[in-house]
Amino acid sequence: MNKKIVLNTLAKISLLEAVLMLLPCSVAIYYGEMNTLKTFLLVAVSICAVQTPVLILTKQKDVVMNFRDGVAVAALGWVVISVFGALPFYVSGEIPDPVNALFESISGFTTTGSSILTDVEAMTKGMMFWRCFTHWVGGMGVLVLTIAILPSDKKSSSLQLMRAECPGPTVEKLVPKGKSSALILYMIYTVMTLLMIIFLVIGKMPLYDSICTTFGTAGTGGFGIKNAGIGYYDSAYLEGVVTVFMILFGVNFNIYFFIIMKRFSDVFKNSELKVYLGIIAASIGLLCANTMAYGVYGSFSKAFRYSSFQVGSIMTSTGFATADFDQWPEFSKAILVILMFIGACAGSTGGGFKVSRLIILVRTARRNLRKLMHPKSVNVVKSDDKTLNVETVHGVSGYLIIYILIFFTSLLIISLNNLDFTTSFTSVTTCFNNIGPGLGKVGPMCNFSELSNLSKITLSFDMLLGRLECIPMIMIFAPSMWIKKLY
Amino acid sequence: MNKKIVLNTLAKISLLEAVLMLLPCSVAIYYGEMNTLKTFLLVAVSICAVQTPVLILTKQKDVVMNFRDGVAVAALGWVVISVFGALPFYVSGEIPDPVNALFESISGFTTTGSSILTDVEAMTKGMMFWRCFTHWVGGMGVLVLTIAILPSDKKSSSLQLMRAECPGPTVEKLVPKGKSSALILYMIYTVMTLLMIIFLVIGKMPLYDSICTTFGTAGTGGFGIKNAGIGYYDSAYLEGVVTVFMILFGVNFNIYFFIIMKRFSDVFKNSELKVYLGIIAASIGLLCANTMAYGVYGSFSKAFRYSSFQVGSIMTSTGFATADFDQWPEFSKAILVILMFIGACAGSTGGGFKVSRLIILVRTARRNLRKLMHPKSVNVVKSDDKTLNVETVHGVSGYLIIYILIFFTSLLIISLNNLDFTTSFTSVTTCFNNIGPGLGKVGPMCNFSELSNLSKITLSFDMLLGRLECIPMIMIFAPSMWIKKLY
Repeated sequence: MNKKIVLNTLAKISLLEAVLMLLPCSVAIYYGEMNTLKTFLLVAVSICAVQTPVLILTKQKDVVMNFRDGVAVAALGWVVISVFGALPFYVSGEIPDPVNALFESISGFTTTGSSILTDVEAMTKGMMFWRCFTHWVGGMGVLVLTIAILPSDKKSSSLQLMRAECPGPTVEKLVPKGKSSALILYMIYTVMTLLMIIFLVIGKMPLYDSICTTFGTAGTGGFGIKNAGIGYYDSAYLEGVVTVFMILFGVNFNIYFFIIMKRFSDVFKNSELKVYLGIIAASIGLLCANTMAYGVYGSFSKAFRYSSFQVGSIMTSTGFATADFDQWPEFSKAILVILMFIGACAGSTGGGFKVSRLIILVRTARRNLRKLMHPKSVNVVKSDDKTLNVETVHGVSGYLIIYILIFFTSLLIISLNNLDFTTSFTSVTTCFNNIGPGLGKVGPMCNFSELSNLSKITLSFDMLLGRLECIPMIMIFAPSMWIKKLY
Repeated sequence: MNKKIVLNTLAKISLLEAVLMLLPCSVAIYYGEMNTLKTFLLVAVSICAVQTPVLILTKQKDVVMNFRDGVAVAALGWVVISVFGALPFYVSGEIPDPVNALFESISGFTTTGSSILTDVEAMTKGMMFWRCFTHWVGGMGVLVLTIAILPSDKKSSSLQLMRAECPGPTVEKLVPKGKSSALILYMIYTVMTLLMIIFLVIGKMPLYDSICTTFGTAGTGGFGIKNAGIGYYDSAYLEGVVTVFMILFGVNFNIYFFIIMKRFSDVFKNSELKVYLGIIAASIGLLCANTMAYGVYGSFSKAFRYSSFQVGSIMTSTGFATADFDQWPEFSKAILVILMFIGACAGSTGGGFKVSRLIILVRTARRNLRKLMHPKSVNVVKSDDKTLNVETVHGVSGYLIIYILIFFTSLLIISLNNLDFTTSFTSVTTCFNNIGPGLGKVGPMCNFSELSNLSKITLSFDMLLGRLECIPMIMIFAPSMWIKKLY
């Protein structure tokens, strides 16, 4: 590993974060929150003071990043940005406990949305803006932002970084140059964000609330700015807008690129999109029927309103809530837990296992059964008319195993809290899949403050693992990562 | 598929079961239970009356079974034997509800040990003997018994049957002929059974109780004959004997064959055995520490006694209980739930995912990570110094996917009962892995009688799926199974 290039990129990421802190500064000025303003300026200046010398000292010319460097930058970059991002919470005293501040920051950047705050509304406007803004930054990816904004050194470096940050099975380059891809992604992201803000303002949501809610939706994060969540506004129109945009942000962004390029046939034959929308529709139907059967909602329109919101929120890993679904019948809860595992589309801002991986796994299983039945036939696993090679299929299966191992290890650690099984199980589920709320004591109307520090650190690590899809966070612990040349 | 040969073999299995019913008959005579005696004679005669004509009509000469026929016999054979095995419960009126009777019978033959009985001790001795005996028959396999006892038609037929009944990754033929392998397996099984009965009788357990308890242990089943389970005897010696034998019956029977053949090097280099014993030792240590830390048990010796029994019972999928582990701290419960999934060794009488599969999956994951790190190196997955081929690795991954899909589908159906998440989750876990008790409302001191008929039927199907390791039970639903020739 080329340590200089890694340190150099980490310094760039940190400085970019310091610049981003000017946004909450302006919010603090607008609302006259002097203490908050001072906090952000202090933190931003400190970051610059520490990282500018690093940037200068590690400068190299014409050095190309290899895959291992990219992985190290992705893993360490997310740790660095989370630690610096936690400083405002801690320094201002709004979250006095350092572990809690870090948990909240990681939850923000990884777009999980799990919170340790018991009273969200007590936060200052500037700090709350920062909290929600971390979702927006984390949603499309910290490294993608770095690539899009900063002058590119080398074409291949940016590709290595994008590959490390989104190692999902279907991330394709949109255009040959990594920087251009990153720019296109951020343009689509920004336009959709602006559209959503406009729709919310039309529905009479205050501008500040609209911006914060949109940040949480766009990044599929889920931090609320009201203790009662989106339910606070009690408006079917606003909930509808949020539902639609949650689902839109859970779609692979390549689809939007195809639409812009008028490549409609690529859109229509995309099986991930079809399965994703199919699962959403089926889940809404089942939840409507189940909640109505148990008399939770008296009318179909109410059942549809709350079910569709919750399905969109959980499937896309946003985690907003308009109802206390922990009180829903068990069948509905089981569906939501399963949706937590499936997650959104690859190449979206959403988390979870990803629909495309699910499709590959189901096809692999079907192929294996067919192979057993007709041993002499040739069976290949296909995805969107492209024959998947053995390595992809293998990779997805391997990912599933790593996913299960991490899940059960975390479950063991969390169960040391001696909270009930449902709480332990769903707190790991919700953090690892970057959703937000779970069931039981971490349900939509509760928070994570009661857990032990060990649990909070474990869940923070799970959030990072989930956001980076495990591999980079595991690889930096391999000794061979740190040896300069191996072959 | 050759329907004649399938029907013929099914008839043989049924008639064998009718013969086996003479055992509970003798027990009923000994205890003077005339009603029970009449029930068994009636059922046995009825089976003969129905199946003898089938046997004669479907007789064929020199026909060899292919793999698909073997699969059909395995899947349907287990259904047939379970249905006929449920008749005594139902006809005698001891379990008046037909769904309950079938649940109990399937739970017996699949060596699950989940029960719908609220008062076990109310059963007659003869019926109880039959209930426990189903564990013993199911443990080593119905088809293996058929092969061992009945005259063999064709060498390859018996191999197809054994392959279909135990499709695990490491089932090797012990000797070239299937019939000989089956005989060796049953000889080892019988000797170990007799040994255990002797050890229990030495500990002053009544002979009848010893035999029934041994049946439950040998098959890793777990039906108790006392409402308080093994805890009823309150004897550290008896619990120790059961613990040791549970662990022994969870070992791959090939190991015993190696010991008989004095092939000790094959025993010592068997990684499945090492990992299996390692997991047991580690789990006992953690449970001891955890239960003592929470003050459940005052002394180390008590903690060790209850922990080792429960770890042995759950890991081997037996499901006996000497303590209400639903009341243990959450960490201990989480360990037990994870052990439920892992299960025993392949080629043992135990259920679950199997240790050997776990080993292959972990090695695959490790190989994938290494491949990512060093893309140009050659990486192969090894198991016991033998390089595993792509198909095996693929097969295990494929099995994992099918396993997960069935698990979550069942969870959805069970959650329609609207019982809490812990109960729904662990009832599927315990039935699918053929364990016995779960947590919450299906905990060790509770039973499955409260569930709906739909749930009982689903869980019954899960037990069969788990016992036959999914593939045969799924394949009989494939239309191409029923077409005579495809290529």
